[in-house]
Amino acid sequence: MRKLNYKNEIEHCCRFIQNQLKQAGFEKVVIGLSGGIDSAVTAALCVKALGAENVKSVMLPYKSSHPNSFNHALEVAEMLNIVHETIDISPMVDSYLANYAVDADDLRRGNRIARERMCVLFDLSAKYQALVAGTGNLSELMVGYCTQYGDSACAFEPIGHIYKTEIFEMAKALNLPDCVIDKNPTADLWDGQTDEEELGITYKNLDSILYNLYEMELSETETLSKRFNQSEIDKVKRLVRNSEFKRNMPPAPMLSIEV
Amino acid sequence: MRKLNYKNEIEHCCRFIQNQLKQAGFEKVVIGLSGGIDSAVTAALCVKALGAENVKSVMLPYKSSHPNSFNHALEVAEMLNIVHETIDISPMVDSYLANYAVDADDLRRGNRIARERMCVLFDLSAKYQALVAGTGNLSELMVGYCTQYGDSACAFEPIGHIYKTEIFEMAKALNLPDCVIDKNPTADLWDGQTDEEELGITYKNLDSILYNLYEMELSETETLSKRFNQSEIDKVKRLVRNSEFKRNMPPAPMLSIEV
Repeated sequence: MRKLNYKNEIEHCCRFIQNQLKQAGFEKVVIGLSGGIDSAVTAALCVKALGAENVKSVMLPYKSSHPNSFNHALEVAEMLNIVHETIDISPMVDSYLANYAVDADDLRRGNRIARERMCVLFDLSAKYQALVAGTGNLSELMVGYCTQYGDSACAFEPIGHIYKTEIFEMAKALNLPDCVIDKNPTADLWDGQTDEEELGITYKNLDSILYNLYEMELSETETLSKRFNQSEIDKVKRLVRNSEFKRNMPPAPMLSIEV
Repeated sequence: MRKLNYKNEIEHCCRFIQNQLKQAGFEKVVIGLSGGIDSAVTAALCVKALGAENVKSVMLPYKSSHPNSFNHALEVAEMLNIVHETIDISPMVDSYLANYAVDADDLRRGNRIARERMCVLFDLSAKYQALVAGTGNLSELMVGYCTQYGDSACAFEPIGHIYKTEIFEMAKALNLPDCVIDKNPTADLWDGQTDEEELGITYKNLDSILYNLYEMELSETETLSKRFNQSEIDKVKRLVRNSEFKRNMPPAPMLSIEV
């Protein structure tokens, strides 16, 4: 794996955030705090880049969300000294699910929850004239472990170039609370969900395979096959290939003829 | 302006639709029918490409939507002989607006409505294993006359390369009902809204300026300034520049150093 200089990388992320706001003519950001490590790191970077007074945070619990998600988000907001508000998304989500999708499975319910949060965040973006800071990391963006037009929707992705295993190091360098660093990553979209179980691979192996396959461009027979199960390598390649649509704008035809 | 061969262009769009579905491994599409000309043309192209049995349509009225929007959508669905269902989005939209955004202006309300429709369409996409067909035309995509993560959210844009003035010709070539061809284009997000009034320019002038500036790359002093008001040219350039973020994925930093 690559070795980052976290102090430099944090400063680099801050300059990126500052440039994004300057280009768009904004002074503030709004961030959905999930209680997880990605949104905590993003919020801390935004505070460093823009000052606490320019960072609005919002907790967006659904009725089935684990209470710890809210509690940890609150701890992050208080540590960073940023304003926070809470919008319970249950009424909006349930008025859809109960009326039109009673038979929906966990995946459809989870995607609806993620998209509802996007709807609220982008409304707050207009209300506060604040850009929505994305919280996607490189691991999840590459394998598409996110809801299209849901949690992947944002104005910019300040940690979109950092693998999940590196996010933990960054969180330590930013002195974030232990509660977000020590817990098992989960999207908390349904009871008992954990990222690694759902992905079927540990972040350690995922990141290492991603790095070697797509950044180092090591061929499988060369090095990778000696260090990982072929089934894990195949899984990662499949996830990357099948999620390409999430990393691109919807395609349109070219004109049939030059005119 | 360019002159299209509509018969060829329709066949070309159909091949694009067929290829998109094949690549993604899907057989069906789902389309939100607004009662407007863009969704009518898109639906007709999908029927031509995939057969009526593979096109699911849905009307997504909000309580303030003009009754004609529904009636015209129904006329299109019946003419094309495609299944249609109706999902009233008022409960979801209003449980947000009434609880958390009572003071929201028309623009915020309109964006929420557009994003709610996206949420429903993408849930139906999962329910029916059908790709969401986009209904954006080239004029609106270029000036960003759409809600980010709302009506611009889709799996592919089958008419994303066709200017609005050309969409009317395409609708005639597809024998679509007069009701959608003859009416004044509107997003129908609030009472009395029309595209041309909101944009502050006619589609005829908009399309001509877009075509000459960005496809023919004519300099302003050369030809354009003789044919259009400078204020209209400036407006179009400003709209295109300011909506660039809607046509791109959210940016992420590059790594600060090679590792």
